[in-house]
Amino acid sequence: MPADAFAERYAARIAGMTASEVRALFAVAARPDVISLAGGMPFVQALPSDEVLRVVSQVVAERATVALQYGAGSGQEGLKVRLTELMAEQGIEADPADVLVTVGAQQALDLVGKLFIDPGDPIAVEAPSYVGALSAFSVYEPRYLQVPLDEHGLRVDELEDALRGGARPSFLYVCPNFHNPAGVTLSTDRRHRLVEVCRSYGVPIVEDDPYGMLRFEGEPLPSLRSLDPGNVIYLGTLSKVFCPGIRIGWTLAPPEPTRQLVLLKEAADLCSSNLNMLVAETWLADRGRWTGTLASLVDVYRSRRDACLASLERHFPAGATWTRPGGGFYVWVTVPDADTKALLPAAVDRGVAYVPGTAFYPDGSGRDRLRLAFCYPPEDAIEEGVRRLGELLTELPAPSPAGSRTT
Amino acid sequence: MPADAFAERYAARIAGMTASEVRALFAVAARPDVISLAGGMPFVQALPSDEVLRVVSQVVAERATVALQYGAGSGQEGLKVRLTELMAEQGIEADPADVLVTVGAQQALDLVGKLFIDPGDPIAVEAPSYVGALSAFSVYEPRYLQVPLDEHGLRVDELEDALRGGARPSFLYVCPNFHNPAGVTLSTDRRHRLVEVCRSYGVPIVEDDPYGMLRFEGEPLPSLRSLDPGNVIYLGTLSKVFCPGIRIGWTLAPPEPTRQLVLLKEAADLCSSNLNMLVAETWLADRGRWTGTLASLVDVYRSRRDACLASLERHFPAGATWTRPGGGFYVWVTVPDADTKALLPAAVDRGVAYVPGTAFYPDGSGRDRLRLAFCYPPEDAIEEGVRRLGELLTELPAPSPAGSRTT
Repeated sequence: MPADAFAERYAARIAGMTASEVRALFAVAARPDVISLAGGMPFVQALPSDEVLRVVSQVVAERATVALQYGAGSGQEGLKVRLTELMAEQGIEADPADVLVTVGAQQALDLVGKLFIDPGDPIAVEAPSYVGALSAFSVYEPRYLQVPLDEHGLRVDELEDALRGGARPSFLYVCPNFHNPAGVTLSTDRRHRLVEVCRSYGVPIVEDDPYGMLRFEGEPLPSLRSLDPGNVIYLGTLSKVFCPGIRIGWTLAPPEPTRQLVLLKEAADLCSSNLNMLVAETWLADRGRWTGTLASLVDVYRSRRDACLASLERHFPAGATWTRPGGGFYVWVTVPDADTKALLPAAVDRGVAYVPGTAFYPDGSGRDRLRLAFCYPPEDAIEEGVRRLGELLTELPAPSPAGSRTT
Repeated sequence: MPADAFAERYAARIAGMTASEVRALFAVAARPDVISLAGGMPFVQALPSDEVLRVVSQVVAERATVALQYGAGSGQEGLKVRLTELMAEQGIEADPADVLVTVGAQQALDLVGKLFIDPGDPIAVEAPSYVGALSAFSVYEPRYLQVPLDEHGLRVDELEDALRGGARPSFLYVCPNFHNPAGVTLSTDRRHRLVEVCRSYGVPIVEDDPYGMLRFEGEPLPSLRSLDPGNVIYLGTLSKVFCPGIRIGWTLAPPEPTRQLVLLKEAADLCSSNLNMLVAETWLADRGRWTGTLASLVDVYRSRRDACLASLERHFPAGATWTRPGGGFYVWVTVPDADTKALLPAAVDRGVAYVPGTAFYPDGSGRDRLRLAFCYPPEDAIEEGVRRLGELLTELPAPSPAGSRTT
């Protein structure tokens, strides 16, 4: 049998698949001489490991028969109650019956793609968008309607223009808080307008909120889910506010789509890990513990954000612009006339990694953008990484006067 | 917005989705007065819980920074090495680089469906087949080519006839050892013939082996993977030989399909739980521990199999026939002229649950079959459950002389 005997049988969706640029970078970025501003790995070293050990041991000592067994497809009831309490702290009212526990929010994205996308269906996404969402959706072969962002988040007026012009996306995927990769937050006015527009055109909203609780200053803005519970599938995760190693995400949606999502979840992996779900439930059972840990994580990331922004001011060439995130993990940089993908090998040679902008656009635009993740390296490494990169960018030919946009 | 606003946007695949009969039964079977011979839940109470606690605590105490972080999409290297050692004990040679760790073998089935199935593509499955595999594949909208089983497993001659007649399935899905639901094992002669036939017609084999290590007597037969490594995707799981609560399964495949499966895995959930992968790795690191535990599980299940078969002899009506599994979890019963799906509510009323045969056939045949799982209840409960069911079946009108087949 020839080596490509399997390939002859592959589904059409496989032809379009390529290795994620972000994932591929993780290997490079693991080299000890490279400062990685690429991957969005949470700084789990900031977790109180003795507390984590206590929680895990407690789960196995007291609830082994449940922890080691198969669980319910929609998730452990006790965890779903805790997740609704966590959402309540952000002003989101929810019934535990409307929650489906997933393997990180990434699995929720896969299930959303399965639920809505037939090959060729249009879906609306922010440009740029989280690269992992694009990977998850692309498996189901959609056409992308790209809606631009600016410093106030999604350009709702542009979405409205497209809908008025006849576009009928199966859903809109949006990350309103501390956007990945753009670092921007959707303004309150636009949130209200967005839910109105989507409702009037019958476009369901998929609201991805991994970073909402990592707010460095100011007050939370209303979630899209809280503004229109009947038309939003909300995606949450513990990966950034606790840890990704237990792979706990969830969906909050109206009962009917939740019923379908549960069936798709069961077909995909039967159920999430009971051990992990009980660890999460037990972690969240002590409000002082999880909110205290979250506050200390916010302090860590705020300080790193500050270091990143100060370093950019210091080391990046005139003409470069960047966003000023009020939370989350990412700064989004525009370097007019640069080709950030082509530059990456030179950057890695100098000991710094980032993610090129093209990874975040379905149509491959974003050549002059790059994403810096400030979440993982300590402040001095961030400064040194930004310095190395700034040095490289400063050596580039001066940009032409045209072609300078902020997001 | 009307209640079905989401539904208007659903993908075509959703129309054919219904709740799994097996999953729906789990709720009924949880009633304390009902003896469940329905779900295939491993008897995790037989695990040495102090040893499990020690392993979990050790992982978090010594490797928290890894355990709590994101992991590699293909799985932790250390675990992949341990899984190849485990497979080596069954005569399967494997390179850890060809292993992909999944969320139970169920996720592997979903990834296989994604890899191979375009809507309308034919795939070949045993009739009956594992209901969860049918659920996973059906999401991708295949046409099913059903190949019957007998007491020696898949009727390879029938498959060959279909291929000779022009059928070109994208793959064959087969469970050679202690089949779910049929309890039968593919004979050595047929294994050799099967890999020859599939190779000559260019049909990849998906070999699902959740129960192979739960052998009650005799010697292991050669895996299809070991007979033709270049044309088989082998699926393994720790759910039955350790525990399902950590959701660890895997694929072993040639490098090219493995590369695609890893990309699909990353798109589906980024990576499996590092905590769970390290627990599995640490559990398997002590060969005496895991093989000793496995031997004690085999003793438990053998004794329950014996109780189940003896109870069937004692309590089931003349005319009923059943398989005699040499391992695994299931006995497959034929009750001529019965409608096992219609009978189920009456059975539950009498305090016993099973899975009706129709759940295991894509075309809804199998009305006169039922699956008994002997894995979870103790011997006396198995006897009482079989007695209750036998009593109900004995009250049925006598079967007609025709229509009696064994598998």
